[in-house]
Amino acid sequence: MADGDENETVGFASDLGRTIAFSDGVFAIAITLLVLSIDVPRGFDDKQLGDFVREEWPQFFAYFLSFAVIGRFWVSHHGNFAMLRAIDPRLVVVNLVYLAFVCLIPYPTDLLGGFNDSSVSVALYALVVGIASLLALMMVRYTRRKGLLVPAAAAQAAANERAMIVAPIVFLGSVPFAFVIPSWTPFLWLLLAVDGRLRN
Amino acid sequence: MADGDENETVGFASDLGRTIAFSDGVFAIAITLLVLSIDVPRGFDDKQLGDFVREEWPQFFAYFLSFAVIGRFWVSHHGNFAMLRAIDPRLVVVNLVYLAFVCLIPYPTDLLGGFNDSSVSVALYALVVGIASLLALMMVRYTRRKGLLVPAAAAQAAANERAMIVAPIVFLGSVPFAFVIPSWTPFLWLLLAVDGRLRN
Amino acid sequence: MADGDENETVGFASDLGRTIAFSDGVFAIAITLLVLSIDVPRGFDDKQLGDFVREEWPQFFAYFLSFAVIGRFWVSHHGNFAMLRAIDPRLVVVNLVYLAFVCLIPYPTDLLGGFNDSSVSVALYALVVGIASLLALMMVRYTRRKGLLVPAAAAQAAANERAMIVAPIVFLGSVPFAFVIPSWTPFLWLLLAVDGRLRN
Amino acid sequence: MADGDENETVGFASDLGRTIAFSDGVFAIAITLLVLSIDVPRGFDDKQLGDFVREEWPQFFAYFLSFAVIGRFWVSHHGNFAMLRAIDPRLVVVNLVYLAFVCLIPYPTDLLGGFNDSSVSVALYALVVGIASLLALMMVRYTRRKGLLVPAAAAQAAANERAMIVAPIVFLGSVPFAFVIPSWTPFLWLLLAVDGRLRN
Repeated sequence: MADGDENETVGFASDLGRTIAFSDGVFAIAITLLVLSIDVPRGFDDKQLGDFVREEWPQFFAYFLSFAVIGRFWVSHHGNFAMLRAIDPRLVVVNLVYLAFVCLIPYPTDLLGGFNDSSVSVALYALVVGIASLLALMMVRYTRRKGLLVPAAAAQAAANERAMIVAPIVFLGSVPFAFVIPSWTPFLWLLLAVDGRLRN
Repeated sequence: MADGDENETVGFASDLGRTIAFSDGVFAIAITLLVLSIDVPRGFDDKQLGDFVREEWPQFFAYFLSFAVIGRFWVSHHGNFAMLRAIDPRLVVVNLVYLAFVCLIPYPTDLLGGFNDSSVSVALYALVVGIASLLALMMVRYTRRKGLLVPAAAAQAAANERAMIVAPIVFLGSVPFAFVIPSWTPFLWLLLAVDGRLRN
Repeated sequence: MADGDENETVGFASDLGRTIAFSDGVFAIAITLLVLSIDVPRGFDDKQLGDFVREEWPQFFAYFLSFAVIGRFWVSHHGNFAMLRAIDPRLVVVNLVYLAFVCLIPYPTDLLGGFNDSSVSVALYALVVGIASLLALMMVRYTRRKGLLVPAAAAQAAANERAMIVAPIVFLGSVPFAFVIPSWTPFLWLLLAVDGRLRN
Repeated sequence: MADGDENETVGFASDLGRTIAFSDGVFAIAITLLVLSIDVPRGFDDKQLGDFVREEWPQFFAYFLSFAVIGRFWVSHHGNFAMLRAIDPRLVVVNLVYLAFVCLIPYPTDLLGGFNDSSVSVALYALVVGIASLLALMMVRYTRRKGLLVPAAAAQAAANERAMIVAPIVFLGSVPFAFVIPSWTPFLWLLLAVDGRLRN
């Protein structure tokens, strides 16, 4: 599915706007579905409900973490696609593969919320987010090399590319930590939030 | 994540339209997910189903309440963002935090529908909606102070800001009531609906 | 919440486009959520799964019925809002109330799929769809009387209004039938599909 | 519901853009809902969770398969609707029927993920995707015959039509295989991915 002839510009391939709109829609839906990962009980009394909600903090943590992750993915996608002057069929396909991993995020979010000190859920979360951020980086590199950028954006794209190298390193690099210190690994991810280079 | 340099205007930050479209999408999805909070049984006979649906009235109440709340948030967001001439990175981030609380609303809605006389669910509902309305107010204040508004909108923005002070006061102020008169607290919220200043 | 001053045109009220986009989003999401009402079992063998799926036909019926209902609501909303030259705050509110009933449709769809010969589920389905279609009719009437239409559309709007009278009559009128012949009532609804006047 | 007078161009029928936007929204939501078909357990220890996730591979397979299927449907719909110069009421209706089958895909995806070696789930998956791809083909043929295409797109549309014949043949043709070699039938579908003619 990955081999397209890039010089073909008829039909859908030329429609950059519709790809951006579709991607925006997918980001908006994935981020909104996160709330479904927080469990809602039935048939408790007030005391039991209070205890249940209090013990649900890992689910709130996972919700806000994934909201920040998908939100940042959207901001980044947004910025990078705003610099394109055209899109080719291969980029449409890679963008769909990237979106497949973004859309998957509610699944490890739900696992992480339910099993916050489990190696399996932490490693899976790191893996899914890591792959998505790696694909995002690959897309920026691809658009720069294929000359799909508006000329004025070249320097910005190169800077974005350098900054976007941190996220896949942190997430994919944290997979082994998940099997040693699962409970603490999510705090490694917070490094990204304080990393200044990612802000631009 | 909250410290951005506001004078930066390259890249995504200048794209007001895409932020509005993204926010609209999130509002539309969050409001539509509310229906999933209404329970649907299986395996009942006609009599049992009738009893079940009749006892579900708190779920219908919670559904329509949250539909009104998110609908009003959308109308307000709509009006405030229509007055912007530009957006900066910090506003993008605060808007995402605000949307994280709007998207969370289906969760306390589901709790409130299942536990309508519980202090926990009423307090949690008030807290989530109160924080969202406080963040909405902060965004309007921020855009006014940072000069992000179109000049003609200054008076309107100041009026909106004054009107928007009621919602966080009512919701956050109702949290203590949730622990004394949980069943009646939602009726306090109806004060907002009759409050004329919020209409403009 | 229903009393707005219609002569106010500042702020959000003037933004017809964003209301249409929001409504379209809500229709698209509500129609797509319908699939969640079809049950998916776990842990059956091939024979049991075949029996289960075969007995699920009322759920498929309910799915396609509601897809047609929401699809037609969308087409109708689409056509009526395309004729507007402006929108006022009251129409924004009535449109939100209308959307609250459209978004509710997945709930009676799920009930109808699970309880296809139950008076309760059939009556509730008829009630929700009937109220939504009544609100749609009220909106067309309102826009025509308040002069919110583009002048060229007056005759078309009057014709739409006459055609739109059928749906609330059929659905609300079928509520009593639900308590006598629940299994056959959905077939009454099919009258709408063959009713030619609704096509224009 | 299928007989419209095609020469009517007033009202909604002329609005091609809103139909495309609605369809895009539906594609984006259907593709994002796929993640809900992956089961998330509660109350396991780390070892049990690892086993559970490992045994979930058919669910991941079904997720990525359906993501590719809906993604390709979107790309194809996108390309075909970009060539239209107008839309008529009948095409609006056929497009809604087509979308009803696209939106249904999360259901057989969920079945296929839970019952990967079952004839029932494999046959149902093939049937739903096959019908959707057949309707897509019918829409292209219809727009070409009714002269709804922009003149310059005639050759491209004819080529698309020839290429789009493969998908319904593969999926509908695989239904009998589902009853003989259910576990291997999904691999037949991969023929589509390597089929070069579908790329253009």
